[in-house]
Amino acid sequence: MKLSEIYLYLKQDISKIEKELEMSIEARHPVLVKASSHLLKAGGKRIRPVFVLLSAQFGDYKLDKVKHVAVPLEMIHMGSLVHDDVIDDAELRRGKKTIKAEWDNRVAMYTGDYMFAKAIEIASKSGNMKLHEILSDAMVEMSIGEVEQIKEQFNPDQHLRIYLRRIKRKTALLISVSCELGALIAGADETTQMKLKRYGYFTGMAFQITDDILDFVGTEKELGKPAGSDLMQGNITLPALYAMRQDESLRRDLVSFMQTKGTGDVDMPGIIQRIKDTGAISYSKEMADRYLDKGMRELKGLPDIRAKRALREIAEYIGRRKF
Amino acid sequence: MKLSEIYLYLKQDISKIEKELEMSIEARHPVLVKASSHLLKAGGKRIRPVFVLLSAQFGDYKLDKVKHVAVPLEMIHMGSLVHDDVIDDAELRRGKKTIKAEWDNRVAMYTGDYMFAKAIEIASKSGNMKLHEILSDAMVEMSIGEVEQIKEQFNPDQHLRIYLRRIKRKTALLISVSCELGALIAGADETTQMKLKRYGYFTGMAFQITDDILDFVGTEKELGKPAGSDLMQGNITLPALYAMRQDESLRRDLVSFMQTKGTGDVDMPGIIQRIKDTGAISYSKEMADRYLDKGMRELKGLPDIRAKRALREIAEYIGRRKF
Repeated sequence: MKLSEIYLYLKQDISKIEKELEMSIEARHPVLVKASSHLLKAGGKRIRPVFVLLSAQFGDYKLDKVKHVAVPLEMIHMGSLVHDDVIDDAELRRGKKTIKAEWDNRVAMYTGDYMFAKAIEIASKSGNMKLHEILSDAMVEMSIGEVEQIKEQFNPDQHLRIYLRRIKRKTALLISVSCELGALIAGADETTQMKLKRYGYFTGMAFQITDDILDFVGTEKELGKPAGSDLMQGNITLPALYAMRQDESLRRDLVSFMQTKGTGDVDMPGIIQRIKDTGAISYSKEMADRYLDKGMRELKGLPDIRAKRALREIAEYIGRRKF
Repeated sequence: MKLSEIYLYLKQDISKIEKELEMSIEARHPVLVKASSHLLKAGGKRIRPVFVLLSAQFGDYKLDKVKHVAVPLEMIHMGSLVHDDVIDDAELRRGKKTIKAEWDNRVAMYTGDYMFAKAIEIASKSGNMKLHEILSDAMVEMSIGEVEQIKEQFNPDQHLRIYLRRIKRKTALLISVSCELGALIAGADETTQMKLKRYGYFTGMAFQITDDILDFVGTEKELGKPAGSDLMQGNITLPALYAMRQDESLRRDLVSFMQTKGTGDVDMPGIIQRIKDTGAISYSKEMADRYLDKGMRELKGLPDIRAKRALREIAEYIGRRKF
């Protein structure tokens, strides 16, 4: 099953979720509607709803119930993107102007707040308490992760452990929760919930590592922002962490750039090349692949339904995606 | 019953709530703990927990259940204060440095996010779905209110209606919800819940109007910030709205100050005096009193227990408070 086939097979339900998302942001305040639709229309892969829909098929799949999970999860993701843009001082997101670039930081902050609150409001319509607990736990972890990201920004001396914990909170957790809650809301048994939760965690880790690789190997057109943006913003990711351990002179250059808090002159294409020369890309790729393998292993033992093949295909897609 | 007696009578339970609040912010991230405790230690009247505890006494009062409402409500309030400080660019809150002054806007944003998420996490332990719906509805409204406040900042041409809607979302709503949910969690009947909810709304409106009056009549020492701070930050409140309608030359001066977005030179003590000269303070006071009367009327028909006398006393206190 190809990725395009997965979307085709879920098409009808995904577009219903999309409609629900649009309806959900119909707030009574024009600025908020404008800011939210702006983000909504910027698109994105809706990967979290996809995970929810697929995981729900391991139980008693009913879209009217599943949407109370799929919509909030995408809204939480969007809310965190808005707040991230405030942090990163980003002007572009998916090639479009960010909310904070178009309005200001304060509007971006409250648009995020609105999306978080709205997400919980929708989730509360599920009538499922455990869902609420898991969702709010995840949001707590995510906000801790955000503060951690600020603390580690422009800090070149990070342990790999710190990086992994950060991407767990930043990405893997919400994907993991998407899978877990999809299974939960559809009434799948606990073993299935657990396996899907773990599949989501491993796949999410691989997804973020791949994203971090692409920031070095992608073109500006593919990324919707210049290559090396993470480094420019002081976010030191796996390839850079590895490369600094391999190349002392590169390390010195990055340390002094980090000391300028991103204001210093830097030959980013040159830095990127030197990072690549250390073998950092294939090192990072291997780590992503190891996570994907772990994710795949969790799927074994689950009933051999179409959704399982789709989840496997998504993991494979992450492994080979180019942008 | 005096206000001090109310606190005395609730003392034991309030201090348990205080302890729960402290425990709740024990995040695993030092910056977050520091930022949150900073806010927690700044104190405050804990008025929302007080409303929860009192309202719960109209049902089957059990602190172990009630705390799942009282703690989240205070945390949501604190979270919104943190985000407010980002908006208002405030350096002082209750006479102490704000989180954004001590750290930065980004830390303030995520500390707020953390508090909101933590609040929902705690509320989810109540096992009560309706509570969740009401709480998340309120958070949605509050975030809409925040965006509205940004839009209306430095806008001298506001209808009274806009002001009232803003203070409803900013203050009255959460106090109203505190009363409603206190009654709900204690299993009070629906009429009681409704009466307390309405009492909370009216009292909350009066509370905010009084706050807005005090910003003009209080001293810097009493307020913990200079008098006229609201105006300086472009937040146009009831006394100023009224005064501008009465005194055309004052209106012109305020309009031109607002056009400078708060950067222009202004004789604030002079402006405050001219606002007072229009009778704006007693006009605003009367409006607050009308809300308090409406709140009191809701209490009629409720059983004549100690908590009812306390709620009446709180309303009376708001009517006469000086800072």
